[in-house]
Amino acid sequence: MTEKTFIYASAPTEYIEVDGIRYAYRKSGDPGATPLVCLQHFTGTLDNWDPIIVDGLAKERQVILIDNTGVGNSEGKTPDNAQDMGKDAIKVIRALGISKCDLLGFSLGGFLAQVMVDLEPQLFRKLIIVGSAPQGAKALHSFPQLVEKAFALPPKEQYLFVFATASEKSRAKIGATLGRLFIRDEDRDKNASMEAIKAQISALTRWGTDPVTINLSKITQPVLIVQGSNDEMMDSSASIDLYKAIPNAVLVFYPDSAHGSFNQYPELFTDQANSFLNKFE
Amino acid sequence: MTEKTFIYASAPTEYIEVDGIRYAYRKSGDPGATPLVCLQHFTGTLDNWDPIIVDGLAKERQVILIDNTGVGNSEGKTPDNAQDMGKDAIKVIRALGISKCDLLGFSLGGFLAQVMVDLEPQLFRKLIIVGSAPQGAKALHSFPQLVEKAFALPPKEQYLFVFATASEKSRAKIGATLGRLFIRDEDRDKNASMEAIKAQISALTRWGTDPVTINLSKITQPVLIVQGSNDEMMDSSASIDLYKAIPNAVLVFYPDSAHGSFNQYPELFTDQANSFLNKFE
Repeated sequence: MTEKTFIYASAPTEYIEVDGIRYAYRKSGDPGATPLVCLQHFTGTLDNWDPIIVDGLAKERQVILIDNTGVGNSEGKTPDNAQDMGKDAIKVIRALGISKCDLLGFSLGGFLAQVMVDLEPQLFRKLIIVGSAPQGAKALHSFPQLVEKAFALPPKEQYLFVFATASEKSRAKIGATLGRLFIRDEDRDKNASMEAIKAQISALTRWGTDPVTINLSKITQPVLIVQGSNDEMMDSSASIDLYKAIPNAVLVFYPDSAHGSFNQYPELFTDQANSFLNKFE
Repeated sequence: MTEKTFIYASAPTEYIEVDGIRYAYRKSGDPGATPLVCLQHFTGTLDNWDPIIVDGLAKERQVILIDNTGVGNSEGKTPDNAQDMGKDAIKVIRALGISKCDLLGFSLGGFLAQVMVDLEPQLFRKLIIVGSAPQGAKALHSFPQLVEKAFALPPKEQYLFVFATASEKSRAKIGATLGRLFIRDEDRDKNASMEAIKAQISALTRWGTDPVTINLSKITQPVLIVQGSNDEMMDSSASIDLYKAIPNAVLVFYPDSAHGSFNQYPELFTDQANSFLNKFE
């Protein structure tokens, strides 16, 4: 029997239990040889992915969005460090019966991608790391202050503050992304709880201050690194550091863009990601 | 009557006279709204473009390869500076009846692209600049020494020295590029003359030492900048400088690659260039 396939707007939230904890996830696209698992940014849930990107990628593979421990509709206590978050995500991937997948990590999700490929290299074919940074990145030392500044703003301005530059063009494009996040009326995810947010702030800050444990030069997988020209959350230059440290990496920078680089250019990113996943070796 | 279209291997060399000088060029692909004009690297002729790239781009547009003044089968005296070379290329484009085109400049051709968009911004819709540098780039101060080192090598090693890194993978891929350059048996171009080569060395060196005259921040066109991780000819970091100076630029870096970045990843580059030319704004 063929599995029914879905697009972003209609993919039902599904659940799987791992170690007594119920995790929420959604699948889009036809199951193929290698699914793409997507791990979200700080505070982000299943409803924070850009439908243009998910549907564009799901045309050529199965895309699986996961809420990590304690986030959105996933139960459990959110760990306060990226290492334990990465271990949890690996358990969920295993529980889904996946023996090999591609991994897209956005921001905090990009930290987890680094942890996960370091822990279980054989589980991952290719990685896409968007708006992220290597361990020890200095910009993360001031992450709590940036978050405080963002949380003082009304919701739309908060989103624009994090994901757009100050330019009208960037704000308009990221404003459109924000609109697309409400394409689903029903079966929406819960917002991240304050407890999860606090644990994530700890994980993000510790990524910049804890000792460096991952040797990026040992990553043998092809990696696509994507960043905006002016990302204050991560500092754009951290992606150049990632690119230089990972042996087989392609680096892409978009213009006049901040932490929401790939959301600002969803069609271009989708083309680049599909080409990378389908052809790059 | 529909114009006959060609692929790289069979496109006949055509000629057009401008100011009493006969220029050689080749066209592939269906004429569409916006042709892509391609300007070549130091010593390069119509036979030095990668057939995978030209045919891949020509599937979605007309691609026009031009021998600039005094190079290959084009007559005239090669200028000793990029400004005059750029003026010549503009004249050829005008003579071909083109009122708007995209421009791909590789290395020295990328200098010309900067000159040309500065001189006649209304003539160009989008630019692709591969393995190039802004005016004043320091790596060019030692260009004559690098050329001397390259010219002391046998032909295949010369090609690998310039376009590949020292890794086996890079050398194998660029060796394959070199093989593809002989896909045409007949109607081949003349090699660049020693006179043209000397003038080009002057133009390349002067790009690094002459006063900066072009204000890259005034370029309003979308620009795709492509470079390899380890380009000694131009210094890879010069492409980051270009990206930071040009307001609406997308930057792409490939791994373990030198001056032949796009030749080493021809399928990936072709996808990225087509997506950029078709969709990026």
